[in-house]
Amino acid sequence: MQFSSQLIEDAVNAFASLPGIGKKTALRLVLHLVQRPTEDSVHFARSIAMMRENIQHCTECGNLSDQHICSICRDKRRDQSLICVVESIRDVMAIEDTQQFRGLYHVLGGVIAPIEGIGPTDLNIDTLVGRARKPETREVIMAISPTIEGDTTIFYINKLLDGVDVAVSNIARGVSFGGELEYADEVTLGRSIVARTRM
Amino acid sequence: MQFSSQLIEDAVNAFASLPGIGKKTALRLVLHLVQRPTEDSVHFARSIAMMRENIQHCTECGNLSDQHICSICRDKRRDQSLICVVESIRDVMAIEDTQQFRGLYHVLGGVIAPIEGIGPTDLNIDTLVGRARKPETREVIMAISPTIEGDTTIFYINKLLDGVDVAVSNIARGVSFGGELEYADEVTLGRSIVARTRM
Repeated sequence: MQFSSQLIEDAVNAFASLPGIGKKTALRLVLHLVQRPTEDSVHFARSIAMMRENIQHCTECGNLSDQHICSICRDKRRDQSLICVVESIRDVMAIEDTQQFRGLYHVLGGVIAPIEGIGPTDLNIDTLVGRARKPETREVIMAISPTIEGDTTIFYINKLLDGVDVAVSNIARGVSFGGELEYADEVTLGRSIVARTRM
Repeated sequence: MQFSSQLIEDAVNAFASLPGIGKKTALRLVLHLVQRPTEDSVHFARSIAMMRENIQHCTECGNLSDQHICSICRDKRRDQSLICVVESIRDVMAIEDTQQFRGLYHVLGGVIAPIEGIGPTDLNIDTLVGRARKPETREVIMAISPTIEGDTTIFYINKLLDGVDVAVSNIARGVSFGGELEYADEVTLGRSIVARTRM
């Protein structure tokens, strides 16, 4: 790509450094910003810089947060006896969107994946044991992806919590609501038969 | 989407205001930036703001430029007798990428499209006549998309240049190189037969 402007080239390269954005898309985005008022682009840039410079991990649960302690951990109306363990902030958002959970979270920052060199010490696991030991904590809910790495992580945490006086539970696994049975994968379908629940 | 962080929400909304980027993609990009060093995001933001605050239209050809006059118009090694008329900077880049043209450009900023309310006065057309009148200009090459609006624009400019002592040409239209004839659209194929060239 031949640029006649260094400014455009720099901005295109900035966008193209993001995952899933190629040079052509980056150019489209830059030319779009050129057509919008200058303030829009300045506001855009400031939002990104502000976010990156001020974002932090909640010291309590590991969630991304504007402050030392995230807004969920600060919310005293939430059920302090439930801790839902998830991989990432994306999962926090997905569960919040369901509006079915009013407890607290614990964000691991990933799952144990020896092949990728991610061990338990790379994750936010040790603070979880401390939180589980608090007298107000009654239950730790594992909301981890049902993969081999996810199951390994669940197994590891479950062992760690062995001596701790909390219930440990796992989110239900089975066929999706609204999905056609014939399109469910074999493993999910097979296990959903084995783990059937009484009506 | 439930955000537990205002900073993240602002950054996601900033990305999601760009064309073709939805909230989910925006979140993916923001979380990617969180994982990269802070300097990367600051550099990213600065590239965008710098570009938007300093970019200008070349007073000569209308191309986007870092300076008053763009780098192509400033380049005295280029053939000053040829002016290639295009719709947008994207076309300048596409033609530059071919490395087949060493003249100058004239960027209209669009084509005449009455239905969308774009008339000749909304485009960078009047300066073209001035440039065409310069004694060094020998030929004006129309490199406009072969659409109804494009053809209208070509016709309009051609009339304007009627009394001016320059040759006006049109880029060749016909079947694409490397394309299969059977997949060429009817209009292109039909016209390419009518406008056949002698070997």
